[in-house]
Amino acid sequence: MLVFTADQLRGLAQGIFMKVGSSQKEARVVADLLVKSNLAGHPSHGVIRIPWYIQAVKAGRAKPGVKTTIVKETPSTAIIDGHWGWGQAVATEAMELAIRKAKKSDVSAVGAINCWHVGRLADYSMMALKHDMIGITMVNSSPLVAPYGGSKRILSTNPMAFAIPAGKEKPFILDMATSVGAEGKIRVKLNRGEKVPDNWLLDKEGRPTNNPADLYAGGALLPFGATVGYKGYGLCMLVDILCGALTGAACTSSREYLAREFFGGNGTFVMAINIDSFTPINQFKARMDELIRVIKESPVAEGFTEILVPGEPEFRSEAKMLREGISIEEKTWKEICETAKGLGLDAERIVSAVQARAKA
Amino acid sequence: MLVFTADQLRGLAQGIFMKVGSSQKEARVVADLLVKSNLAGHPSHGVIRIPWYIQAVKAGRAKPGVKTTIVKETPSTAIIDGHWGWGQAVATEAMELAIRKAKKSDVSAVGAINCWHVGRLADYSMMALKHDMIGITMVNSSPLVAPYGGSKRILSTNPMAFAIPAGKEKPFILDMATSVGAEGKIRVKLNRGEKVPDNWLLDKEGRPTNNPADLYAGGALLPFGATVGYKGYGLCMLVDILCGALTGAACTSSREYLAREFFGGNGTFVMAINIDSFTPINQFKARMDELIRVIKESPVAEGFTEILVPGEPEFRSEAKMLREGISIEEKTWKEICETAKGLGLDAERIVSAVQARAKA
Repeated sequence: MLVFTADQLRGLAQGIFMKVGSSQKEARVVADLLVKSNLAGHPSHGVIRIPWYIQAVKAGRAKPGVKTTIVKETPSTAIIDGHWGWGQAVATEAMELAIRKAKKSDVSAVGAINCWHVGRLADYSMMALKHDMIGITMVNSSPLVAPYGGSKRILSTNPMAFAIPAGKEKPFILDMATSVGAEGKIRVKLNRGEKVPDNWLLDKEGRPTNNPADLYAGGALLPFGATVGYKGYGLCMLVDILCGALTGAACTSSREYLAREFFGGNGTFVMAINIDSFTPINQFKARMDELIRVIKESPVAEGFTEILVPGEPEFRSEAKMLREGISIEEKTWKEICETAKGLGLDAERIVSAVQARAKA
Repeated sequence: MLVFTADQLRGLAQGIFMKVGSSQKEARVVADLLVKSNLAGHPSHGVIRIPWYIQAVKAGRAKPGVKTTIVKETPSTAIIDGHWGWGQAVATEAMELAIRKAKKSDVSAVGAINCWHVGRLADYSMMALKHDMIGITMVNSSPLVAPYGGSKRILSTNPMAFAIPAGKEKPFILDMATSVGAEGKIRVKLNRGEKVPDNWLLDKEGRPTNNPADLYAGGALLPFGATVGYKGYGLCMLVDILCGALTGAACTSSREYLAREFFGGNGTFVMAINIDSFTPINQFKARMDELIRVIKESPVAEGFTEILVPGEPEFRSEAKMLREGISIEEKTWKEICETAKGLGLDAERIVSAVQARAKA
């Protein structure tokens, strides 16, 4: 394991993204959000993605430097065409627009089509917090999840993220796949030689399995819910409808999606809700604080030492990594260095320079 | 088992509700929605509630005939004070208002406070369908569900219902508790002497249990999700925030809620989204039809004979019961008859008269 500061990884990522034609602002947004994922304790959505992103640029799938256009707009809604620009830039723009609209219209919703990989969702929803708004973000992508009762990958992991401000307590941040987990979690189990729990996977014949390798042999992830998996499936389908059918980005297993030359990218749907349009913001925050405290101070169940509120694990991870640094596996670091080298950049030198500046 | 037509039960229920001071319109709305629950195959939210509703009126908790007032309003949002009127009337008014607002503002949200029991949620969301809108309904109520990692009832079963129109296919109707199930499902298991599945219940010490009786001895329902129960918990908390904190109806375990002289009623939050503001409605419906067909025609998993889309079981139940009648257990019928008698009504005579009119 190698350890870096957030600034080092941000500086390096920004340099790499600028080298493939991103504007400085774009490169900063993508770099910042990848590093934020590492800080939050979700390395699957962090700088490990850099080599894949650069490959996508080379293959013409991700298109740095393009400008978005507005397909359709009303005072409270819009559809943005990302023209396959960086997902982070497009989704950030979508949420900025939703926030501006909610300031005037109280409730707003913005969709984005032709949008490359947006990464972790929580950060977009969290943009609403400083405006005393509730932020909601959802995306669909490529097939990996079986419907409840089905054996074939039809839906994607279809995550949804909600950010809601509190007063003295930390905000409520719920960011979750509507499948049992992201694909990355299964890969980790595979690499560690571990089994997956019941109700997580089907093999390619549609039989329940605990073997993570079965996912990569044509199996499917299950929607979350176990004995009531039809609930996770319902939510998974809901996200596909809002992100694919309502925005026009295409549903995961539609002819339109499957006819594309490549899989990837995210149909994106965001909403902003202005709290003060419903209830005085200070009263709302006091209620949030009370709710969080009542939950955290309530008795713990057998096998648990503490009750956490959605978002707490990520806030703790961030505080720890800002103190102790971000660990990156040798293999991941090597791949990032090679990607940088392919673009004429020396990753080691860049991170050393950032460190030297920080010390100066 | 006794079998009645929907008209018979509706006529009887309407007569009962008018007898306790409801306007004809109010009585019709409450009666209609209770019977719709029976038709949908959810008798727990059907006419079985009549005796409890009448008790609530006698105890001064539910207040037939009161008029709602508007606490706060913008072109796209509102908070309605139900003054403890029938929940069905208040929630119907909330969704009607949301739909009117979404016609002008594209996206709208309406909360309701001081609102008695609204019953099954799907029907409110479904009001949006004929306007080519997406309807969303959520409610919170009294404590029954433990947070993930906790052992005490802090949250309620906090259901959410989404209705989305399709073209030739039936609409998508997802109506689900964010707990593993409604309390009624545990009571059914108890009455039948059955065990509940793993990850459904905790006993009063916070230990996992399969014994439904433990819920009634101080235990708690779990949020749905099993090994990833933090997801169901997150959604459960989200509903409490939107329905309790944002509307001002009070969160389930807040001092404000617990200080009330009685438990009951629903903090209610509804939204309407005008589809054509985002994407041409015909294209949207074609995408919905394709999504539904792709899912239904995909291969079935081991142990299943068919893949259902959310809402299908209820549409099938309704078609069957409209043909064959609605079965009511003797015990439930007896209780309804006694309730009617206490109000000077002869239930048997009313249902016979409805039947005679239907035949004439």
